[in-house]
Amino acid sequence: MNLLLLSNSSSDAGYLAHALPDIRELIASLPPGAPAVFVPYAGVTRNWDDYTALVASALADTGLNIQGLHRAEDPVATLESAAIIIVGGGNTFNLLGQLRRQGLLDVVARCARGGAAYLGWSAGSNLACPSICTTNDMPITDPEGFDALGLLSFQINPHYTNAHPPGHRGETRAQRLAEFCTLNPAMPVLGLPEGSGLRVRGAEVALIGPHDAPLFVGQEAPRTFRPGLLEIPA
Amino acid sequence: MNLLLLSNSSSDAGYLAHALPDIRELIASLPPGAPAVFVPYAGVTRNWDDYTALVASALADTGLNIQGLHRAEDPVATLESAAIIIVGGGNTFNLLGQLRRQGLLDVVARCARGGAAYLGWSAGSNLACPSICTTNDMPITDPEGFDALGLLSFQINPHYTNAHPPGHRGETRAQRLAEFCTLNPAMPVLGLPEGSGLRVRGAEVALIGPHDAPLFVGQEAPRTFRPGLLEIPA
Repeated sequence: MNLLLLSNSSSDAGYLAHALPDIRELIASLPPGAPAVFVPYAGVTRNWDDYTALVASALADTGLNIQGLHRAEDPVATLESAAIIIVGGGNTFNLLGQLRRQGLLDVVARCARGGAAYLGWSAGSNLACPSICTTNDMPITDPEGFDALGLLSFQINPHYTNAHPPGHRGETRAQRLAEFCTLNPAMPVLGLPEGSGLRVRGAEVALIGPHDAPLFVGQEAPRTFRPGLLEIPA
Repeated sequence: MNLLLLSNSSSDAGYLAHALPDIRELIASLPPGAPAVFVPYAGVTRNWDDYTALVASALADTGLNIQGLHRAEDPVATLESAAIIIVGGGNTFNLLGQLRRQGLLDVVARCARGGAAYLGWSAGSNLACPSICTTNDMPITDPEGFDALGLLSFQINPHYTNAHPPGHRGETRAQRLAEFCTLNPAMPVLGLPEGSGLRVRGAEVALIGPHDAPLFVGQEAPRTFRPGLLEIPA
């Protein structure tokens, strides 16, 4: 597998700008003008054409030829012929529900396992996990099952932070993840801070970006990983 | 109906202490020692016996005789004989999933509609809504459907705030609710700030506590309600 899973898309540098060096490395072996499909279904308040245009513009210098999956006449064939599948952020429940109802969830998983590159951020990174059970998003629609692509063997929590607005009496992020780990003691969760990502090559997983990342497993104290190769397989 | 739906349980005053005057008013017509059942199923990292003891201790001066639903030999009969059903906070997905799998969701709804008082906070307030689609909780388990008790005709977003940790690139609360309102344009959502609650008597709904609360409907600019009777029916 050949995956790049980012926590976030936007930064002070501009849309996807902080990730451009890693995206170039992800697609280094692809020919110029390689067919790329963008999956905009996490967008809810965003029009899918506008979202596709935003991503195509942000990646214009990469030479990829980006088409929105929502405009494909034959979505299965479009996914099967794509050299890279790009899955944007937004609402993870909407993304998963759309792909499941359109019968495309298994197609995306098969293509990514079969060699297509996969670039995801936020909801697109959640989608690559065994389930969407560690998303931060609001459950605005029922995806009819929480199982997802399962490209990774563990869960990601994107936008990881344990910061908390003052006066807030709801759960902290650490409390939410502790609840997940209580119900799912064998499933690790990597907290991916803003600006961080995972680079997956075959079974190797590397943490990229400037920050450390905590790994939560069951009731154990979290382990902190530094950027570089992780000791957990994809 | 006779409901008290709180945003939160804890405050600087202690567990449920800020809500005690409203809880006393809710149960004013019940006889001393009236049977009360506590539903602890939103608790995940919390032991259900401990959670029941915590609530019983916080409400000791009210004279209610509180039993945990998880200890009931006949949960249906226990609910049907309860003068008040108390549903605590924690994880809304776990709460809904437990009640659905045990076949108790419809029983709770029937009892609350039939005259039992209902006290909920956080996840317990989400449960009273048509669905749990406006919870802030992490989807750590699939509740096999997002529909909930439907005691209210609109949604609550508990712990409402639009504050945001610095540097966070994930969605704000207002963005998340805008996503819900885009997919569900006819369903109002009331943002319930910390310290606030809703008091429902029959079809009348009053906002209680010191804060104003915003109501979101579709793409309209949010209306702000002051404490007091609301113009929306239960």
